[in-house]
Amino acid sequence: MYGRTTLRILSSRATFHYRSVERFYCAARPGPHYCRGPAMTCPKETSYAVLGCRETYFWHSHGFHDFRYQAYEDRTSVIEEPLDPFSLVSDELSAIAKRLRLMVVAEVPKLALATECFFRMGAQGKSFRAAVLLLMSKALPMPLPQMTADGVFICLKELDARHKCIAETAEMIYVAGRLHDNVLDDAETNCVMGSLNSVMGNKLSVLAGDFLLSRAFVALANLKNTEVISLLAIVVEHLVSGETMQMTTSLEQRRSMEYYLQKTFYKTASLFANSCKAIAFLAGQTAEVELLAYNYGRNLGMAYQLIDDVLDFTGSSSSLGKGSLSDINKNIVTAPILFAMEEYPQLREVVDRGFGNRSDVELALDYLHKSRGLDRTRELAAEYADEAVKAIEALPQSDDEDVIKSRRALVNLTGRVITGTK
Amino acid sequence: MYGRTTLRILSSRATFHYRSVERFYCAARPGPHYCRGPAMTCPKETSYAVLGCRETYFWHSHGFHDFRYQAYEDRTSVIEEPLDPFSLVSDELSAIAKRLRLMVVAEVPKLALATECFFRMGAQGKSFRAAVLLLMSKALPMPLPQMTADGVFICLKELDARHKCIAETAEMIYVAGRLHDNVLDDAETNCVMGSLNSVMGNKLSVLAGDFLLSRAFVALANLKNTEVISLLAIVVEHLVSGETMQMTTSLEQRRSMEYYLQKTFYKTASLFANSCKAIAFLAGQTAEVELLAYNYGRNLGMAYQLIDDVLDFTGSSSSLGKGSLSDINKNIVTAPILFAMEEYPQLREVVDRGFGNRSDVELALDYLHKSRGLDRTRELAAEYADEAVKAIEALPQSDDEDVIKSRRALVNLTGRVITGTK
Repeated sequence: MYGRTTLRILSSRATFHYRSVERFYCAARPGPHYCRGPAMTCPKETSYAVLGCRETYFWHSHGFHDFRYQAYEDRTSVIEEPLDPFSLVSDELSAIAKRLRLMVVAEVPKLALATECFFRMGAQGKSFRAAVLLLMSKALPMPLPQMTADGVFICLKELDARHKCIAETAEMIYVAGRLHDNVLDDAETNCVMGSLNSVMGNKLSVLAGDFLLSRAFVALANLKNTEVISLLAIVVEHLVSGETMQMTTSLEQRRSMEYYLQKTFYKTASLFANSCKAIAFLAGQTAEVELLAYNYGRNLGMAYQLIDDVLDFTGSSSSLGKGSLSDINKNIVTAPILFAMEEYPQLREVVDRGFGNRSDVELALDYLHKSRGLDRTRELAAEYADEAVKAIEALPQSDDEDVIKSRRALVNLTGRVITGTK
Repeated sequence: MYGRTTLRILSSRATFHYRSVERFYCAARPGPHYCRGPAMTCPKETSYAVLGCRETYFWHSHGFHDFRYQAYEDRTSVIEEPLDPFSLVSDELSAIAKRLRLMVVAEVPKLALATECFFRMGAQGKSFRAAVLLLMSKALPMPLPQMTADGVFICLKELDARHKCIAETAEMIYVAGRLHDNVLDDAETNCVMGSLNSVMGNKLSVLAGDFLLSRAFVALANLKNTEVISLLAIVVEHLVSGETMQMTTSLEQRRSMEYYLQKTFYKTASLFANSCKAIAFLAGQTAEVELLAYNYGRNLGMAYQLIDDVLDFTGSSSSLGKGSLSDINKNIVTAPILFAMEEYPQLREVVDRGFGNRSDVELALDYLHKSRGLDRTRELAAEYADEAVKAIEALPQSDDEDVIKSRRALVNLTGRVITGTK
C-alpha cells in the first residue's frame, strides 16, 4: 500500500547498511505451537530481507519502523501540529479514572488503599491500555447498527459508553494482575506496587486484585455481550499462563526464544490484542477489521514488552543508562540475554546456573554489553511495531478527520513504545 | 402450609421448654443495611416466639428444625429408604470432577498440582456446593421452553449441561477463594489447603486461584447468559468483601452480630444463594421460584457457616470434642463468642485485646463454655436451616417422583448441615 513511499524514504537515507535481519527469526519466529490466540501474526521475514542497520542506530531512530511511521505521518492530511495521543482522549481517561475510583471506594472502603495504587499506576503509565483502546474505538470505520441481545438498537453514544467500559475493565484486569504478581514476587520496595504492598500487606493486595477482577466481570456482564466476556476472561487466563510459564521453566525452556515470546504474548500482548478485538466486536465491525484490531494490539503489546525488557537493563533516558536489573535478579531470562547467548554460547552455562550469585549476574551483563543482544531486541520490537502500523494502514479508508487523527495517534503510540516514551 | 403437621409434632414432645428465642434477633437480626444481596430474607421472629429448648437439647436433635424436617419427610411419598443426597447426583459429581481435572491439566500442566488440591477438597467436602446445585436443578418445576440469545431453543439435555456448568463454576470459584484465603492467612499445615500451600508455595496457589477464576468466567461466558455471569461475578465480589470485612474490623464491628452475619453472608452464603438463583434463572423459572432458590441457598449457607464456627470450637464427633480453634487463634470473632459476650459482658475486654496471648484465649474459652454461646449459635443455624426448608416447601407442587426426591434431598442436606455431617 505504501511501498513506493517507504522505498523513497529508505533510499534517501544513505547511511544505513543493507544487511538481512532475517536471522532474527531463526531464533525468534513465532511458530504455530505457541500462536495460541486467534489469528496470531508475526513480522514477515520477506519484506524486510533487504533492510539493515548499524549497531548504534536503533536506539535513536528505531530503524525501518521509523520509515513506516514517518510515511504514515506524511500521507495523513492533519500533520500540522505534533500529535499527543493521550491528549486526544484525555477527557475520557479522566472520566474513566473518576468512575473507577467511585466504583471501588463506594463499595468497599477498606480497599480504598488499593485504588490509590490503581491511580498512582495510572498516572505513571498514563493509563496506557485505556488510551490505546479509546483511540482504537475512534479509529475504526463508522460502525454498523448494533442490537443488544434484548433486541434494542445501540446508538453511537451508547457504543461509546460500552467502549469506555472495555477500556476500564482492561485497566482493572491489568492492575489486578500487577497486584497479584507483586504478592507472588515478594515485591521490592522500589516500585509503586511494591511500596503499596509494603504499606498494606500481601493480604490486601491479593484481595484488591480479586476485587478488581470481580468488578471487571460485573461490568462486562452488564454489556450483555458474552463474546466480549470470553475475550476478557481469556486475557485473565493468559496472564496466569504467562506468569506460570515464567516461574516454572526447564533449562531448555529458559534458553528458548519461542518459549519467551509465547510467555510475552500471554503476559502482556494478549490483553492489548483481545481488548482491541473486543472494541471492534462491540462496534459490529467485520471479521477482517476485528482481526486488524487484534493484530494491532498484539504487535503493539509484543513491542511494548520487548522494550520493557531492554529498559530493565538500560534504564530510561533519565536513569543514566542503568536499569533496575529486576528480571535478571529474579532469574528471569529475557530477549536481550537470549540474543546475547546466540553470539556467546558460553553465556548459556551462566544462564543455566540461575544467576544465584553476583558474579554470575556481572558475567552475564558483560556478555550482554559486548553482544548485540540489546540492539537485536530493539530491532525485533521495531518489527512488531511495524506490523502494528501495518494493521492500522490496512483498516478501511476513511475521510473522517477524527478517524484519521485517531489512526495517526495509534501509529504514534507504536513510536512511543519503541522509544520507551510511552 | 405445614403449620398443622408441625404443631402436632411439637405438642407431642412435652420435654421442651417454651421460652422465647426472640432475643436471638436483638443481636442477630439481619438488618437492611447488610441485606445487600437481592431479596435477602431472614428467619421470622414471630413464628418461633413460643419455641424454646433446653441447653443440652440442640446439638442432638436440633430443635424445631428437626420437626419441620421430619414433617417434610412424613408428607412425602417416597420415604421407604434412608436418603443420601449425594448418591442421587453421584454420577454427575463424578463427571464434573473428571471434566474439571481435564480442563485444568490439559491447558497448563504446571497447575496440575493445584488441581490435585481441587480434587482432594472435593473428596473431603463431597463437592457440597456442586451437589446442592445439581439437586436444585432436579428439584425445580418443569422448566419453560428456553431460547439462547441467538434464538436457539434449549432442550432439556442442554439445560442439564448448562446446570452442570453452574455447579462446576461454583466449585471452581469456591476453591479459588480457598486458595487465595490460604495464601493470605499463612495457612496452617493441618488443613488440606495449608499442606498444599506448603508443597507448592504461595505463588502457585495464587496463580491456581486466578486460573480457576478465569476458567470459571470462560465457562460462564460460553453459556451466553449475561445475567448468570453477573450473579457469579457478584459472588466473587462478595467473597472479597467478606474476607476484607473479616481482616479489617474496628473494635465496634468485632462486637457486632450484625457485622458478623453480613460477613458470613458474603463469605459463605452468597455463593450458595446466587448460584441457586442462577440454576433457576437458566431454567426459565418465574421470579418467585428464583427467589425461593436464592432463599434456600442463602439460608443453607448461613446455617452451614454458623455450624462451621461451632465446630471450630467443638470439633466434629470424631475429634473428641476438641476443635481446631483456628478462628480464635487468628483473632476472628464468631457467633459463639458473640453470644457468650451477651451473657458475660466482661468477655468483651478479652475480645477487645485481640487474643494475642494464650491466657486470653483460655479465658475466652472458659466464658464460652459456661455460657449458652455454642447452643445459641446452633439454634440460630437451625432457624436458618428451617427457613431453607420453608423455601423448598414453597416451591410449586409437583407429582414428579424425581422432583419430590430431589426436594427431600435438599431438605435432608439442611439436616446434615445442622448435625455437621455434611
